[in-house]
Amino acid sequence: MKKLVRFGVSLDHHLLDDFDALIRRKKYTNRSEALRDLIRDNLVDQQWREDIETVGTVTFVYDHHVRDLTRKLTHLQHDFQGQIIAGMHVHLDHDHCLEVLVVKGKGSQIKKVADAMLSVKGVKHGKLAMTTTGKGLT
Amino acid sequence: MKKLVRFGVSLDHHLLDDFDALIRRKKYTNRSEALRDLIRDNLVDQQWREDIETVGTVTFVYDHHVRDLTRKLTHLQHDFQGQIIAGMHVHLDHDHCLEVLVVKGKGSQIKKVADAMLSVKGVKHGKLAMTTTGKGLT
Amino acid sequence: MKKLVRFGVSLDHHLLDDFDALIRRKKYTNRSEALRDLIRDNLVDQQWREDIETVGTVTFVYDHHVRDLTRKLTHLQHDFQGQIIAGMHVHLDHDHCLEVLVVKGKGSQIKKVADAMLSVKGVKHGKLAMTTTGKGLT
Amino acid sequence: MKKLVRFGVSLDHHLLDDFDALIRRKKYTNRSEALRDLIRDNLVDQQWREDIETVGTVTFVYDHHVRDLTRKLTHLQHDFQGQIIAGMHVHLDHDHCLEVLVVKGKGSQIKKVADAMLSVKGVKHGKLAMTTTGKGLT
Repeated sequence: MKKLVRFGVSLDHHLLDDFDALIRRKKYTNRSEALRDLIRDNLVDQQWREDIETVGTVTFVYDHHVRDLTRKLTHLQHDFQGQIIAGMHVHLDHDHCLEVLVVKGKGSQIKKVADAMLSVKGVKHGKLAMTTTGKGLT
Repeated sequence: MKKLVRFGVSLDHHLLDDFDALIRRKKYTNRSEALRDLIRDNLVDQQWREDIETVGTVTFVYDHHVRDLTRKLTHLQHDFQGQIIAGMHVHLDHDHCLEVLVVKGKGSQIKKVADAMLSVKGVKHGKLAMTTTGKGLT
Repeated sequence: MKKLVRFGVSLDHHLLDDFDALIRRKKYTNRSEALRDLIRDNLVDQQWREDIETVGTVTFVYDHHVRDLTRKLTHLQHDFQGQIIAGMHVHLDHDHCLEVLVVKGKGSQIKKVADAMLSVKGVKHGKLAMTTTGKGLT
Repeated sequence: MKKLVRFGVSLDHHLLDDFDALIRRKKYTNRSEALRDLIRDNLVDQQWREDIETVGTVTFVYDHHVRDLTRKLTHLQHDFQGQIIAGMHVHLDHDHCLEVLVVKGKGSQIKKVADAMLSVKGVKHGKLAMTTTGKGLT
């Protein structure tokens, strides 16, 4: 059950004007929603610092012509079977593929999966996006 | 056609030892590959700064029970049809979904897609991973 | 003249509890102050994106035994005289010095100063901290 | 005593061209120096992750008209006397001051000093720059 609380924030009116302009540009329809997002972002940072169970996505771009690369990447993903929930493959152009993996586990384990994928020869670039299971972030 | 060049780097031996230890931990099998990754990472940063065509993935987590949310998210994605190449949906638990979109375009446009998705009420958290088309990053 | 406005934010009580715990740990005495900081942080990010006049500090660590290094660093700082407001020098140990420069100008110019200082041979590490003139951030 | 080692890196010539262009723009005179900087940057990241002794600078901007603020900031700095090595104060304009503190200690302790300073009411913005003692980064 959701229980909403309401509390007051006091702000200088110039600061509020600037914030309102910023969130309008970011397409927020609502000041509370923008503030909730700032708060959740802070809490998610904290979850990663505390190394509790969380979720991340590992994105990487590679040239599928590199010999044996696809096999290696598949192989590696099986080593982390407990943690990789799903993956998507996109053909960027004739040479390049992008793959995104959704990984669940402790922050430190997810970072290991990212390190392992990004260090494979033929993987040109990659990034870990640190997000959340959503639990507790009502 | 790929043409490899070879050049020498000189380094203090302590620095090299520490770097070797670090890349071993990150699972690199090869010093050149680790250095190429550092170089490519720098170049990708630069591509985003110059606002040329590039690729990013937008990850977000939401509660699918929020009324009308799924419809809104689908609707929004259609507004950015030219840029969103593909999407994947993962059921994290009874309440939470994670979605990843692969977006192609100028850096500034990809950021707009991310801003639009993350500002929707009911989307609890999200992140943009800034990667690359792979072109020119041989 | 400061004019305070007060507005209400509604939040799920679990989210608020978690946020209160986080800001207590960060030593905030007051929820409004923590939210104002999140808001200002967002606005400062935006100032750097828009490349308007702002302030940054450039920190770098170097070995003062490297021949000719001190002279080079001083020389460089004179090239950016209009932008560097002040500098501080700290002796970290027998070999290492840390220097911090306070730089004012457009974001892109401040980044140039940082690039120039950090690329000097003998400078081992450095970072740019992107802050603000404080104007408009009441 | 410094002992230099030299090793070869092989790279596609396009990648090398792009890297050369990038480091020219960043004012490097020398490819090895640019690579050493990338390597050191990686090692410093690692030092902060391992929470060993390191150095950071805490920059913050505040309005000195806020009642009792200067006293509070001085007071706080004394609480962290063992860690704060030095500080510099700059008058940005009629209202705003910028202060930079050089802090030495474990990464987690330096973050605490930053949290404490940035959470004081009247401090409008601040940033922690995570650098290094320089030791071992020859």
